[in-house]
Amino acid sequence: MNLAEYLPEQQELVETELDALIPPESAAPGTIHQAMRYSLFAGGKRIRPILCIEAARTVSDDSPGVIKTACALECIHTYSLIHDDLPALDNDDYRRGKPTNHKVFGEAMAVLAGDALLTIAFQILAELTNVSAERKVRMIRELATASGTVGGMIGGQVADIQGEGQQPTAALLDSIHRAKTGALLRASVRLGALHAGGTHDEVGALSCFGEHIGLAFQIVDDILDVEESSDALGKTAGKDAHQQKITFPAVYGLERSHEMARLECDRAHRTLDVFGQRADRLREIADLIVHRKS
Amino acid sequence: MNLAEYLPEQQELVETELDALIPPESAAPGTIHQAMRYSLFAGGKRIRPILCIEAARTVSDDSPGVIKTACALECIHTYSLIHDDLPALDNDDYRRGKPTNHKVFGEAMAVLAGDALLTIAFQILAELTNVSAERKVRMIRELATASGTVGGMIGGQVADIQGEGQQPTAALLDSIHRAKTGALLRASVRLGALHAGGTHDEVGALSCFGEHIGLAFQIVDDILDVEESSDALGKTAGKDAHQQKITFPAVYGLERSHEMARLECDRAHRTLDVFGQRADRLREIADLIVHRKS
Repeated sequence: MNLAEYLPEQQELVETELDALIPPESAAPGTIHQAMRYSLFAGGKRIRPILCIEAARTVSDDSPGVIKTACALECIHTYSLIHDDLPALDNDDYRRGKPTNHKVFGEAMAVLAGDALLTIAFQILAELTNVSAERKVRMIRELATASGTVGGMIGGQVADIQGEGQQPTAALLDSIHRAKTGALLRASVRLGALHAGGTHDEVGALSCFGEHIGLAFQIVDDILDVEESSDALGKTAGKDAHQQKITFPAVYGLERSHEMARLECDRAHRTLDVFGQRADRLREIADLIVHRKS
Repeated sequence: MNLAEYLPEQQELVETELDALIPPESAAPGTIHQAMRYSLFAGGKRIRPILCIEAARTVSDDSPGVIKTACALECIHTYSLIHDDLPALDNDDYRRGKPTNHKVFGEAMAVLAGDALLTIAFQILAELTNVSAERKVRMIRELATASGTVGGMIGGQVADIQGEGQQPTAALLDSIHRAKTGALLRASVRLGALHAGGTHDEVGALSCFGEHIGLAFQIVDDILDVEESSDALGKTAGKDAHQQKITFPAVYGLERSHEMARLECDRAHRTLDVFGQRADRLREIADLIVHRKS
């Protein structure tokens, strides 16, 4: 199966599982489940879940239930988008071409829908049935750390906000992005490998892969914000420059940023050498992350 | 030791442990840790942690590390206060006599500090060292459920917001408060009992205790909002009536609400009969919850 067939198939599998894991709108109080589902099913690319599933496949032919772990990661990602879009934070009206959560459900419900998605992510991991309790605890711990303040997603978000208008330096840029997007992308492959019973060395190799594609992903994200239109992105383009964010193009310029993205992609490929052909799909995904247009 | 000596001693133990568990302000990014600590150390009564610790003592003489589980509960409680106080939700400027988190750190940081406290609660449980992995997974699952949307804290908060201005009925009142405050108070005693290795019957008995004091707690909370001044409460009094919230005094009147609080307290006492003198401290805490003035 080529990537163009594989991706929509995986996206559909993830969406079917998310639909089963999140309480229906008919469960009281319905509005919160409606708000959670609105953002979960707003057409995300499911990069984190797919990375998780493929990392599991790279270490084992059969990882029952890994799709649930993949969905927990998507819940964390979606909560972070809902809260980031709030007026007090990035104040975005559109996300993936649709009105943001607070524009549809109001700010109060958007805050609570984010809280609920964050909470249910841990519940999903705790309720996994095909993983030992020891592995589950480790996965929960890693997800919490990757989402947290010290080197994790929230820490990166804070550094990003505080960095606005500051002198952009390479060191600051690196630390912001490793935390803000890198930590969860890295956790996505790690949790997949852990779920599948990966060895220390396997988890370690995939972890390096996650770091490099995490960095590549963010560099490309920054480039797209400069080069693409709002229509193509489904969100407001050019916001980084407007908000004086510390970005790769701001620090290195566009040409050098393109080079850096390719370099990180090459590095990501090399970390997969130990897996041989088993990791072919992860290689394709790494290439896709660098060559995407939105 | 009498209760007047016991409570400040326990509060100090909880605060010392919280101080050890939450990253210091010197850890980057400092602002988020400062914001988390501001609300965590704003003089809470530590009812949930103390219930957790005492539930553990009721089933076992020695529960090493239960104070960490107690702190995880306080992190969840504090995150919920920070988010509830936001302008988009209850829009409160004062909490425990001090400016609310967003008044000091701004709305963006308050959203993120709440997210971070919610996240670290699960990390703390996952990192417990004196509890089996099976128990930890169960505790994480119960905490997530008690904090979540279906019968949990977020669900209660949503129902509470949506209930504003609606016809107050006994059934609606009951379902809101069981979820909004009851679920986490019940989880506090359950997690303490689980941490201590309590049997199925012990956890069950303490669970009933938690339900009754949870209800008593909320009835008294509603009564205090009517009877006490803002100064005494450390937050804006009379807000429930102003916001047309569904409260016990609104549904039953003040006199009947007082009676109901005493009744729930009596019921809570009876659930402890099986523990004999071991549960004396929990009995005192139940009485305190009903007779408190703030």
